[in-house]
Amino acid sequence: MEKGRILLAVTGFHPQRWHELLSAERDVVLEPDGAKDPSITYAVVWKQRPNLLSSLPNLRAIFSIGAGVDHIFADPGLPKVPIVKVVADNLTQYMTEYVVWRVLDHHRQGLLYRLQQKKKAWHDPPQPPAGDISVGIMGFGTLGRAAASVLLSLGFKVNGWARGDKPMAGVSTFAGEAGLKPFLNATDILVVLLPLTPNTQGLINYGLLKELRKRNGLGGSVLINAGRGRLQKDADIARALDDGTLKEASLDVFEVEPLPKTSPLWGHPKIFVTPHAAATSDPAHLVPSMLRQMDAFERGEKLENLVDRNAGY
Amino acid sequence: MEKGRILLAVTGFHPQRWHELLSAERDVVLEPDGAKDPSITYAVVWKQRPNLLSSLPNLRAIFSIGAGVDHIFADPGLPKVPIVKVVADNLTQYMTEYVVWRVLDHHRQGLLYRLQQKKKAWHDPPQPPAGDISVGIMGFGTLGRAAASVLLSLGFKVNGWARGDKPMAGVSTFAGEAGLKPFLNATDILVVLLPLTPNTQGLINYGLLKELRKRNGLGGSVLINAGRGRLQKDADIARALDDGTLKEASLDVFEVEPLPKTSPLWGHPKIFVTPHAAATSDPAHLVPSMLRQMDAFERGEKLENLVDRNAGY
Ligand SMILES: NC(=O)c1ccc[n+]([C@@H]2O[C@H](COP(=O)([O-])OP(=O)(O)OC[C@H]3O[C@@H](n4cnc5c(N)ncnc54)[C@H](OP(=O)(O)O)[C@@H]3O)[C@@H](O)[C@H]2O)c1
Ligand SMILES: NC(=O)c1ccc[n+]([C@@H]2O[C@H](COP(=O)([O-])OP(=O)(O)OC[C@H]3O[C@@H](n4cnc5c(N)ncnc54)[C@H](OP(=O)(O)O)[C@@H]3O)[C@@H](O)[C@H]2O)c1
Repeated sequence: MEKGRILLAVTGFHPQRWHELLSAERDVVLEPDGAKDPSITYAVVWKQRPNLLSSLPNLRAIFSIGAGVDHIFADPGLPKVPIVKVVADNLTQYMTEYVVWRVLDHHRQGLLYRLQQKKKAWHDPPQPPAGDISVGIMGFGTLGRAAASVLLSLGFKVNGWARGDKPMAGVSTFAGEAGLKPFLNATDILVVLLPLTPNTQGLINYGLLKELRKRNGLGGSVLINAGRGRLQKDADIARALDDGTLKEASLDVFEVEPLPKTSPLWGHPKIFVTPHAAATSDPAHLVPSMLRQMDAFERGEKLENLVDRNAGY
Repeated sequence: MEKGRILLAVTGFHPQRWHELLSAERDVVLEPDGAKDPSITYAVVWKQRPNLLSSLPNLRAIFSIGAGVDHIFADPGLPKVPIVKVVADNLTQYMTEYVVWRVLDHHRQGLLYRLQQKKKAWHDPPQPPAGDISVGIMGFGTLGRAAASVLLSLGFKVNGWARGDKPMAGVSTFAGEAGLKPFLNATDILVVLLPLTPNTQGLINYGLLKELRKRNGLGGSVLINAGRGRLQKDADIARALDDGTLKEASLDVFEVEPLPKTSPLWGHPKIFVTPHAAATSDPAHLVPSMLRQMDAFERGEKLENLVDRNAGY
């Protein structure tokens, strides 16, 4: 098979580095060019323009920039070719850093210490050991399992929730709808690393947060969302913080991004905001694996890390 | 040998829990009682009153509340009996949490993100991967090595500095005075976990901070001190932050504790202050091991984790 050409179709940021790196080995057409182009074999995309991909008569595979693929499924005219999602050590490490950082900042009372420092107050509040705290990871896939292993080495109890049963040594795992309530009831710090699908959209609402455990020395349960913004109801999180259902939250993602200046989440004293920066896709790490997969595909090998179209992730 | 009596000699906090837990198995005399008491075999101490211990004619061993023993050596009349320092999983875990928490907060730009949130700025600054950052652990003993292993699992490069050569898989180790400059020159984030001894006092001064590396994507070097306050010169740290030698610092310990309200460190925007709370000695975890050691000693076994009086730690 011949070396296929690539359409790079990105909205929301400038794909210059992606273009440079992909071009080093293959012919790359940059959107808005390329529509209907019969010479294009692959599309590398982030939030591609609707119905663009369906116009390509010889498209063989779509490569996602980013671990999530909800941005691809938003296209009503998405053609039925294989979709490859990103799995990269680099991305996984960044996410593990983010999750461990946020868990420790809540566990070790960063917010309280920053307030005390402002008041010049030398005061050592009670501190539960990590072994008294259960971190529940919702979405126990590539990213969730990597974070779990570092959390375990810090002494935390870890719960994992997935669609299927995903055992891991040292972790209590829960599966599917039946496992959700028991998972939440056993969780003090909830870490959301789910993909956004029709089944997960809006899942992180007030009722769900109410189910989190509170019988620990932490002084209340904590939410950390680094999955996708539309998994959560922004307003429900604010309500849960205000009535004490939640103690604190770290949010990397929001229903609308960039988070509008008018959102009360920006100024909420119990929320730590980052701008969808938990694990940014680094082209220098991701492009080589995309190119490797294209080469292998052309030698007749199977594509890896394919999206399950029925499950939507 | 008979079950020895204990003198509990503590200043600076109320030892009620220690008293309760030790009393469950042995006779305990609480300071100020006990001076010259010939029936006392052991002293359990934190900053004992000077010359108190030398008045005990039959003292056989001193047990430190806390991993550091500088508070014991401050006594000019310290008798020449064995000193047992605390080594406890619990204490080690707390310190590992603190070190990993602070390293991640500096590495992942917590300070910048908190400022951006105040301004409602949605902006994703460049983020180096952990593999580009070298964390240098000064004092590579029980606590330093435990923190190193979690930092390695997060992908950081790790350097360790000790008196002797202390190899550890995956870590670049440096020894003694000759190793100090090369260690600092290869370190972006300096974590101080040294004991306070005549050789280490005042070591963390402006000249030393100048030797730290700066050629990383972190935007400057970082200091984290969780050892002892008198290892550092408070004023030199402020100077290094103000002239850009240091980017940020996390300090758990200070030359004078509690940190005086008049100290400029409290209000310094680049310093994160905690009140000597990185790893608090928890009597529920430490008393059982003290009692176990006393029992073993009375059966003729050797005491463990003895302080080297020449080295002072
Ligand atoms: N904030 C950021 O910077 C950032 C960066 C990268 C990724 N992300 C987000 O992180 C998500 C996870 O990435 P990943 O690589 O870990 O994905 P993954 O390996 O596909 O794992 C997804 C996990 O979610 C579970 N899941 C999916 N639908 C579910 C449902 N309806 N009920 C219960 N569990 C369900 C899956 O269960 P099974 O194991 O049973 O299949 C799996 O454990 C991505 O989809 C993306 O949205 C965010
Ligand atoms: N902030 C807190 O809450 C808190 C809590 C607990 C402990 N601490 C502090 O942490 C310190 C370390 O505790 P630890 O249990 O890890 O002690 P440790 O096991 O005795 O380790 C001390 C380390 O420091 C090194 N060292 C000592 N003097 C040195 C010198 N002059 N030059 C170079 N290296 C030197 C030792 O070198 P060798 O390996 O060659 O002997 C060893 O690696 C304690 O002494 C205490 O001050 C603070």
